[in-house]
Amino acid sequence: MGLIVQKFGGTSVANRDRIFNVARIVADTRNAGNDVVVVVSAQGDTTDDLIAKAAEITHDPSKREMDMLLATGEQISVSLLAMALDSVGVPAISLTGWQAGFQTDRTYTNARIKRIDSERIESELARNRVVVVAGFQGLNRMEDITTLGRGGSDTSAVAIAAALHADRCQIYTDVEGVYTADPRYIKKARKLPEITFDEMLELATLGAQVLNNRSVELAKKYGVELEVLSSLNPMPGTIVKEVTSEMEGMLIKGVAKDTNVAVISIMEVPDVPGMSFKVFGALARKKINVDIILQSTGRGDNKDLIFTVPKNDAEIAVAVLKENQVRFGGGEIYVDKDVAKVSVVGAGMQSHSGVASRMFEALYENNINIRMISTSEIKISVIIKLDEADRAMAAIHDEFIQ
Amino acid sequence: MGLIVQKFGGTSVANRDRIFNVARIVADTRNAGNDVVVVVSAQGDTTDDLIAKAAEITHDPSKREMDMLLATGEQISVSLLAMALDSVGVPAISLTGWQAGFQTDRTYTNARIKRIDSERIESELARNRVVVVAGFQGLNRMEDITTLGRGGSDTSAVAIAAALHADRCQIYTDVEGVYTADPRYIKKARKLPEITFDEMLELATLGAQVLNNRSVELAKKYGVELEVLSSLNPMPGTIVKEVTSEMEGMLIKGVAKDTNVAVISIMEVPDVPGMSFKVFGALARKKINVDIILQSTGRGDNKDLIFTVPKNDAEIAVAVLKENQVRFGGGEIYVDKDVAKVSVVGAGMQSHSGVASRMFEALYENNINIRMISTSEIKISVIIKLDEADRAMAAIHDEFIQ
Repeated sequence: MGLIVQKFGGTSVANRDRIFNVARIVADTRNAGNDVVVVVSAQGDTTDDLIAKAAEITHDPSKREMDMLLATGEQISVSLLAMALDSVGVPAISLTGWQAGFQTDRTYTNARIKRIDSERIESELARNRVVVVAGFQGLNRMEDITTLGRGGSDTSAVAIAAALHADRCQIYTDVEGVYTADPRYIKKARKLPEITFDEMLELATLGAQVLNNRSVELAKKYGVELEVLSSLNPMPGTIVKEVTSEMEGMLIKGVAKDTNVAVISIMEVPDVPGMSFKVFGALARKKINVDIILQSTGRGDNKDLIFTVPKNDAEIAVAVLKENQVRFGGGEIYVDKDVAKVSVVGAGMQSHSGVASRMFEALYENNINIRMISTSEIKISVIIKLDEADRAMAAIHDEFIQ
Repeated sequence: MGLIVQKFGGTSVANRDRIFNVARIVADTRNAGNDVVVVVSAQGDTTDDLIAKAAEITHDPSKREMDMLLATGEQISVSLLAMALDSVGVPAISLTGWQAGFQTDRTYTNARIKRIDSERIESELARNRVVVVAGFQGLNRMEDITTLGRGGSDTSAVAIAAALHADRCQIYTDVEGVYTADPRYIKKARKLPEITFDEMLELATLGAQVLNNRSVELAKKYGVELEVLSSLNPMPGTIVKEVTSEMEGMLIKGVAKDTNVAVISIMEVPDVPGMSFKVFGALARKKINVDIILQSTGRGDNKDLIFTVPKNDAEIAVAVLKENQVRFGGGEIYVDKDVAKVSVVGAGMQSHSGVASRMFEALYENNINIRMISTSEIKISVIIKLDEADRAMAAIHDEFIQ
């Protein structure tokens, strides 16, 4: 008995059968005595089809017009789902982003939600209707339609849950929850009953790709309890919340692999103040994210500077560095794309010094060489050779998760 | 130098090439020094495709949700046209019906425009932009999306032209203007340079199918000068306005054929007061439009009642009449679907008594029998046999239009 926000992605509403599957989940939730707000993405390939239509017209479409175009995708799926709900006896009404009161900033194609004026949603709930809201979209102060960018519908769902003080926000996906590792690669991967927001954020960043980071950050900020679960396989999923119940022997929540990594080395850089600023400032201006940084201890007046960037930014990064090299000096610049990052995530890791050494030992026993190491409050990452990554994942998973 | 509203139908924006064709027409109009507001329908088969999607879900969709669904069609075409205009160097902005300020009543799928709050359109024009408005749609007082029903985009265009006091409203179609008869059947048909609103209304009703009646009525009410012209063949079309310049020998503006006609005869109905009310009241309650009515002079206490209805309503009409026959009496009820209505239209016909006799003479000379006759201020219609209709059209056209 409460208010549940349920979000369904594009594959969950891709065709008639899937839409009725969603309608049944919503009907069950409502019949259990809950008020339900449903947030839906565009059907299957709709967004790609619309992007292709625009590409036929111009290769440089106005972002404002792209948002106008793309927002039709969710408008189609909400109206169809509302019809399906009606036809299974659940009174429902669809709302676009602007009808649902989503107010955003003016950044077309990647807008931020400023506030939700939830009056309309609340009045429809009070009329005993399921409210089906178009995800991914809002309205800016100009009364122009905006879209929220990647993972926007997750963000829409969490924002509504926060605005309505919902009891839970369920994110339905094509996986059954959050796993200790990607079950496609690690057979022994276990579904986690619970995970903290911080752990989830690290796992998402590290490539677990279950939830969009922006939505997890928003959920953390407003204390919205999330549940990740499958729309095709009805069973409890993974709860994401601020503090999870203590679980003996389950300090480590997950092992993740990220292959979108390259290591860049600049040899023999002069060891003078301001050097790091010059190097990384040049990269930041090109919006290249630097992750792990390692400096060799100085040899004479020089040191080697080694760091990671996303693999698909590596070429640009090297070009930028070579262009600016007169400003910071140094010798050869090398790039190595044949690497991967493997990480373990778990809150309170810092206070358990044993975690790092157990991880390193597991890698050593499997004859896997560690190139770089990075640690934080809740994760330990190592850079290793790309072709050893899966073996490393398995070894670490075996070590920590039984 | 002025403000022009241009409306393009679904076939005019059906694909990339057509969209750029429209963009060129708009660009030319603007480069000639005009402000331009463009009203666009959904692309080609989009509306049918959306209706099919709804039909997959339910055979009885909520009208409110249908409007939500269908309104996406025009939203797609306006954004694509705005992109195309931008890419040919014409600054443009697209607006949905609600952004353009269309306020309607609450009749979903067939809403009436109540007013247009044209502030946004005017401010975009003031910023020197072409404004591309989604036709066919508006917003009701509940802030729900509504659609305007058949011919809705024509109505949208005329309504904007009226609200903005535009100098002209151009309706681009796949024909080059209004003809004295359908050029597919009558080779000698001539394109009219001008026609009055009233003549146009009669021609539309009679099956000329160039302009939607609702839009012509609105244009007449607000004195909006219309032009019907082709989007594929750039040349002056037909101007539709209140009073046309006098044209010697061109009293008759057109000859039209309507084959959606059936004649119903009720024999030997008692000739008592209230009888007509009982018969036609029963039909009106079923929303069946009765057109021409003919009563035989009484034979004794009875008379025959003969009238026309749309052919596709004939069966229902007969069923309704048989159900109610106890209330008005009479004998056999016959229906004849093997008929057509042929009409001549031209303002001031009443004051030229020669028109009717010339028409009847032309038919007589071609051995065509007249079954029923109806006259009004600006038209004369005859009911004849269906298979003689084309010959009748040609004979009348030859008689009046050289």
